[in-house]
Amino acid sequence: MKFGNRILERAETLSRFSEQADGVTRTYLTPQHREAGETILAWMMEAGMEAGFDALGNVIGRYAGVAPGAPVLMTGSHMDSVVNAGKYDGVFGILTAIECVADLRARGKRLPCALEVIAFGDEEGVRFGVTLIGSKALAGSFDPAWLNKRDSNGVSLGEAIASFGGNLDAIASLRREPAKVAAFVESHIEQGPILLNEGLAVGVVTAIAGATRVRVTVEGVAGHAGTVPMPGRRDALAAASEMVLALEAHCTARAETLVGTVGKLAVSGGGATNVIPGAVEFTIDLRSGDDTLRLAALAELEGSCRAIAARRKIALTWDPFFHLAAAPCDARIQTLIAASVAAEGAAVRHLPSGAGHDAMVFAGKVPIGMLFVRCGNGGISHNPLETMTAEDADKATAVLLRFFENFQPVTGGR
Amino acid sequence: MKFGNRILERAETLSRFSEQADGVTRTYLTPQHREAGETILAWMMEAGMEAGFDALGNVIGRYAGVAPGAPVLMTGSHMDSVVNAGKYDGVFGILTAIECVADLRARGKRLPCALEVIAFGDEEGVRFGVTLIGSKALAGSFDPAWLNKRDSNGVSLGEAIASFGGNLDAIASLRREPAKVAAFVESHIEQGPILLNEGLAVGVVTAIAGATRVRVTVEGVAGHAGTVPMPGRRDALAAASEMVLALEAHCTARAETLVGTVGKLAVSGGGATNVIPGAVEFTIDLRSGDDTLRLAALAELEGSCRAIAARRKIALTWDPFFHLAAAPCDARIQTLIAASVAAEGAAVRHLPSGAGHDAMVFAGKVPIGMLFVRCGNGGISHNPLETMTAEDADKATAVLLRFFENFQPVTGGR
Repeated sequence: MKFGNRILERAETLSRFSEQADGVTRTYLTPQHREAGETILAWMMEAGMEAGFDALGNVIGRYAGVAPGAPVLMTGSHMDSVVNAGKYDGVFGILTAIECVADLRARGKRLPCALEVIAFGDEEGVRFGVTLIGSKALAGSFDPAWLNKRDSNGVSLGEAIASFGGNLDAIASLRREPAKVAAFVESHIEQGPILLNEGLAVGVVTAIAGATRVRVTVEGVAGHAGTVPMPGRRDALAAASEMVLALEAHCTARAETLVGTVGKLAVSGGGATNVIPGAVEFTIDLRSGDDTLRLAALAELEGSCRAIAARRKIALTWDPFFHLAAAPCDARIQTLIAASVAAEGAAVRHLPSGAGHDAMVFAGKVPIGMLFVRCGNGGISHNPLETMTAEDADKATAVLLRFFENFQPVTGGR
Repeated sequence: MKFGNRILERAETLSRFSEQADGVTRTYLTPQHREAGETILAWMMEAGMEAGFDALGNVIGRYAGVAPGAPVLMTGSHMDSVVNAGKYDGVFGILTAIECVADLRARGKRLPCALEVIAFGDEEGVRFGVTLIGSKALAGSFDPAWLNKRDSNGVSLGEAIASFGGNLDAIASLRREPAKVAAFVESHIEQGPILLNEGLAVGVVTAIAGATRVRVTVEGVAGHAGTVPMPGRRDALAAASEMVLALEAHCTARAETLVGTVGKLAVSGGGATNVIPGAVEFTIDLRSGDDTLRLAALAELEGSCRAIAARRKIALTWDPFFHLAAAPCDARIQTLIAASVAAEGAAVRHLPSGAGHDAMVFAGKVPIGMLFVRCGNGGISHNPLETMTAEDADKATAVLLRFFENFQPVTGGR
């Protein structure tokens, strides 16, 4: 095995830079971020890259290409984590890319364009409640208002950047001119069970799913659990239950393209054992790699919920409070990743990403692509039980390396 | 109209003895209990009864019968209320009986047995968390351990009885020998919409429903709302929703004999919009006037929930934490009330009581009966919006009076 063991060892090393004793918690602009970044920086230099922290605490390593003026090929992922995370989410995309560069360097091989490996300081958004700060800065969508966001200790993002040794005045200059970026290609642990269930080490991501979140309120009539006969009831919880099952049935019938979840549901006032619930509030989270399908499903689902409410004589408030467009992966990059998978003797499986990733921030600006690696333990992630095998890490690195070697920039980006 | 207007005026008067400025809150052994009791006592005496407070703050009025040794016919209801209550719950059963006695007295008529009108000091159990204290003492099921129960200010029931001027040493002697009680017959506002929906002023209660309460826990597997495909999910909320609807369908199909309610339902930890719920807890409240039907329904429902859990690969905990047997109304008393209803020119409607009442405490010891009066405003009760018309109060009093006049004690109780 060429890459897998070292990737897992290094993931283990990084996991020790944690704000908690057991399990990984590494949030933005903390001493643990500093330690992880310094370690990654050292590995980048050892692999033959020029490397350094940028103004926001991202670590960027550069492996020069053949043509100095050619657009850069960007890769990498994030080095921060959620609270009580696993060892591979984010980190894998950095470590696999460092292995690729080390191998290219060892063979004395340069790519047509420069390869940049980026370890983003913030993707999860745990500390300041803003996600994807690192990638947004490079994509040109950093909002200076975020500098006033405060963590739970009252420290602002601006203060934390300054303490970390960042440079508030240079944030705007982090933005990359799209014409100078050939692509952003990210490798990431799947964080779901699809590859695991199908016995596949890697998969080609078709799109990072778009999402709609809806806050639904159903208002019926509260009543005495003993004295109100069944036929005349206007039970808000029974209505909400029917809507939960309608969502489940709708998405299950379209399981290849859609997922839908009711994650929160609460009876108004907490409810009482002997009172018919008068009002219930719940949330819907609906995702698809295809915006048209998602919006059609949303409309159909709203219709179903309104029909349930009307039949039960219950008032319905439908409040979509969050919309995120899907980030489709570039067709040419998908084809090239798929060819690399096939060349490594693996079956080609295309799948969407239900979770968000750094790559999506660049969508619509530069071509993006993603390679997924099998997630063990039933697909569990954001949890210390997240696992990846050395064999899968190795296979994914071989695929990624092959992709890098075969990638040709389209002049002027897209 | 003979009785209705005065009943409504007196209910209005009593409603002013309240711990809150707007709406009625009158709990056990408070100054408001004292004021209401004194007022009722005065009305009882004015109607021709001997009356007084007993050792627990119940007010008892006695209208002597023809035969001094005959068993007593008891009637009445409670003078306490829930928090922010209506004006008729409990109070109506006292006021209607006083009207009956006043009418008998005005006509110089004595019944074969003595008639006792009781205004119980506690039925709702708001202050000390024990319900039906007054009627339980008379039925012989007062538990001395309750004397140590404390209200929200730390005052014990024993201390409160003493401050009120009650007599702790005489509580046991309040118990009535069943052989000396001919029956307990209570009039009460329905607290539900059945009579209202059918356009009827009064109804004959068949039984006070028995109840089972179950705490149900469903445990599935939490997961990322975006990355776990629909087919592999083990969503605890979807499973719970299916169970809510199974209960509703089961009880709706047996609506004449059964009501069932899920009043509380909570996603473990409150849930999150983007997380598939891993665990859900909910309560079931199941009631029927017929214990056999209730227990059969409970078993069938548990089977349905276990089948849902098994199909969804979800763990189920089924914890019935409360059982109350139904209190059937005496057949002879039902027949006699029904005959009185018919004699007053009204349609006879038999119906169970889904809520608990003082009468149920006497069930199995002495014959019980109940007369229900139409509840306006959709059947709402335990709420300032509870209403009753003077016409209905009048009709119910006429029925009750006719019942009292035609009632013959069966020697030795039953």
